[in-house]
Amino acid sequence: MKIQGKHYRTVWLKPEDPSVVQIIDQRYLPFELVIEDLRTPQEAATAIKEMHARGAGLIGAMAGYGMYLAALQTLGAKFTPANEAFFEEIEKQGAMLKATRPTAVNLEWGVNRALEAMRANPQNPLQAARETAQIIADEDADYCRRIGEHGVEIIAEISKRKNGAPVNILTHCNAGWLAFVDYGTATAPMYAAFERGIPIHVWVDETRPRNQGARLTAYELGQHGVPHTVIADNVGGHLMQHGMVDMVITGADRVTHTGDAANKIGTYLKALAAKDNGVPFYIALPSSTFDWVMTDGVRQIPVEQRGGEEVTWIDGWTEDGVKSVRLTPAESPAANFGFDVTPARLITGLITERGICPASAEEVYKLYPEKR
Amino acid sequence: MKIQGKHYRTVWLKPEDPSVVQIIDQRYLPFELVIEDLRTPQEAATAIKEMHARGAGLIGAMAGYGMYLAALQTLGAKFTPANEAFFEEIEKQGAMLKATRPTAVNLEWGVNRALEAMRANPQNPLQAARETAQIIADEDADYCRRIGEHGVEIIAEISKRKNGAPVNILTHCNAGWLAFVDYGTATAPMYAAFERGIPIHVWVDETRPRNQGARLTAYELGQHGVPHTVIADNVGGHLMQHGMVDMVITGADRVTHTGDAANKIGTYLKALAAKDNGVPFYIALPSSTFDWVMTDGVRQIPVEQRGGEEVTWIDGWTEDGVKSVRLTPAESPAANFGFDVTPARLITGLITERGICPASAEEVYKLYPEKR
Repeated sequence: MKIQGKHYRTVWLKPEDPSVVQIIDQRYLPFELVIEDLRTPQEAATAIKEMHARGAGLIGAMAGYGMYLAALQTLGAKFTPANEAFFEEIEKQGAMLKATRPTAVNLEWGVNRALEAMRANPQNPLQAARETAQIIADEDADYCRRIGEHGVEIIAEISKRKNGAPVNILTHCNAGWLAFVDYGTATAPMYAAFERGIPIHVWVDETRPRNQGARLTAYELGQHGVPHTVIADNVGGHLMQHGMVDMVITGADRVTHTGDAANKIGTYLKALAAKDNGVPFYIALPSSTFDWVMTDGVRQIPVEQRGGEEVTWIDGWTEDGVKSVRLTPAESPAANFGFDVTPARLITGLITERGICPASAEEVYKLYPEKR
Repeated sequence: MKIQGKHYRTVWLKPEDPSVVQIIDQRYLPFELVIEDLRTPQEAATAIKEMHARGAGLIGAMAGYGMYLAALQTLGAKFTPANEAFFEEIEKQGAMLKATRPTAVNLEWGVNRALEAMRANPQNPLQAARETAQIIADEDADYCRRIGEHGVEIIAEISKRKNGAPVNILTHCNAGWLAFVDYGTATAPMYAAFERGIPIHVWVDETRPRNQGARLTAYELGQHGVPHTVIADNVGGHLMQHGMVDMVITGADRVTHTGDAANKIGTYLKALAAKDNGVPFYIALPSSTFDWVMTDGVRQIPVEQRGGEEVTWIDGWTEDGVKSVRLTPAESPAANFGFDVTPARLITGLITERGICPASAEEVYKLYPEKR
């Protein structure tokens, strides 16, 4: 999508020098747009580990591009063409990349996919790695685009009912294009509506404690020109009580095939308010986010606990640059649960790349019959 | 309650010089304990207007002490003893105090009460004003203490059921002693439990955007020695889903006699989560908070909108002092609704100075039959 009027993806090959991978270093957003050059798999690993690049879809693409850098480095150094020693070395690099964020499913999947492609084309493993990186990125963008095409129909319908008055959509966290390669998941229907000229307005939950909404979602919507308003996470219930929200769309980190959705902490509270006020509540996800084994999300999905300092300190912009400030008494401990699980009974529908379905195993299997 | 081991109220006469009113300047909490001397009604007005002192109960007491300072200044200047010119002047001062926060019901009530007391004792209006200030403060503290005595019975019961394991109480915003003269409302049952040696642990919602939980509630509980943990406002639902909250207690800004409660934005979301998980949800309030006219809180209670900069900027501590930092893209607008209304159907009970009752007109009238 657009930043300062120019189209970007979150990761790409440098046009003037395709041996360099470029990313937006998201640590500086929304305060500064920093493009980072990655020249080695070690630099890619650091970028993943220290969250210069984050989000399920983008991490999958980073795995591909990281393996491309690994192939470049390894071939250049010793092995041309590929032999067993090459593959031994390249698997070490893959393991190094996988270790950067061990719980990110897409990371392992992307690395393995690149390794398989290279093994299948030992005559030109570099080309195989490069093509795989490109394919992963294109697929990610294409899945998100299709989520947008399905989801925009819901927005169009509400818009018609409102006689073209702006459709108010509430979202939580950043399931935007910055978390993927392009379009995003929760944001894809919004961008699609925007492209079609359907008037929308997005309520952006700031999403404490890491403020991905206030920082990233507000930034990407603003840069693309989508009308939006940042709100504290506490506000959504009041807005829904007073008819100021027409629908909710969030992303998800994991969705059981029975329809329970783990997403950023606080999503469950918004789903409760939506239910209480008859506001439709949607989860947008690519099918890679489905968990085909678990059946009870609230009991079975493990919820990561993170450091309390993400609650007690916060980064913000000052005239002297970005500064960290403490928000709490020095002696007060803080707890920091990363996710919560919204039970299927609160979810109106799942917006996937294959279409929209109610949040139940029966309906999910209808869209993905091969998973039965 | 205690700060650094010493008992404080939020407002008092300076022991060495009772012509000076002292308050805790709450703008500096939790980062610094600043005691401010108020010598004139103008200084009292500034302290109310600029929120050195805030909270319904404390504002009522500030009205009394402000009128005492007004009487001191006016008598000293021109009129001894009181005559009509004195009352003309003192009513001007009262109007000046009332204008500082026009929506604060307790402010008008406290000023009027002091004026009446002075009119009833024209021989010694200064003594009348001083006594009235003291009585308002003592009554406020006494009402809160009684709220604590009723509320602690609920905690004691849960404690017994848990065989003495700590009772986990979630609270939102600051309905603590810092918002009153002593004890607080939502916190009064917690302090009473603490005094009785009933083990408790308080989940403190940080309460964006003004962070009264992270700043004030965490500070006052910590200083008094009550175990607590600060959490983002997003967390309560997850905690309740997993049995980590035994009860919720919040204060309120206005409660209809039919049981709908306006309180800090976000309270409604916690009440929904409590209902969804069978967690008892209580509102603690002195009877002055009841609205005896309105019958539908969600539709009738006006909700204040405040400046967006309270969402987009935040104050925090740094080694170079307290600094303000911006959290959002410079171009992104923000909305800031101060309160939301929790419908009676989500409230387990109202804890008042006369006892606990279900949130319905019938039950409220049983406790306050004179209001029928």
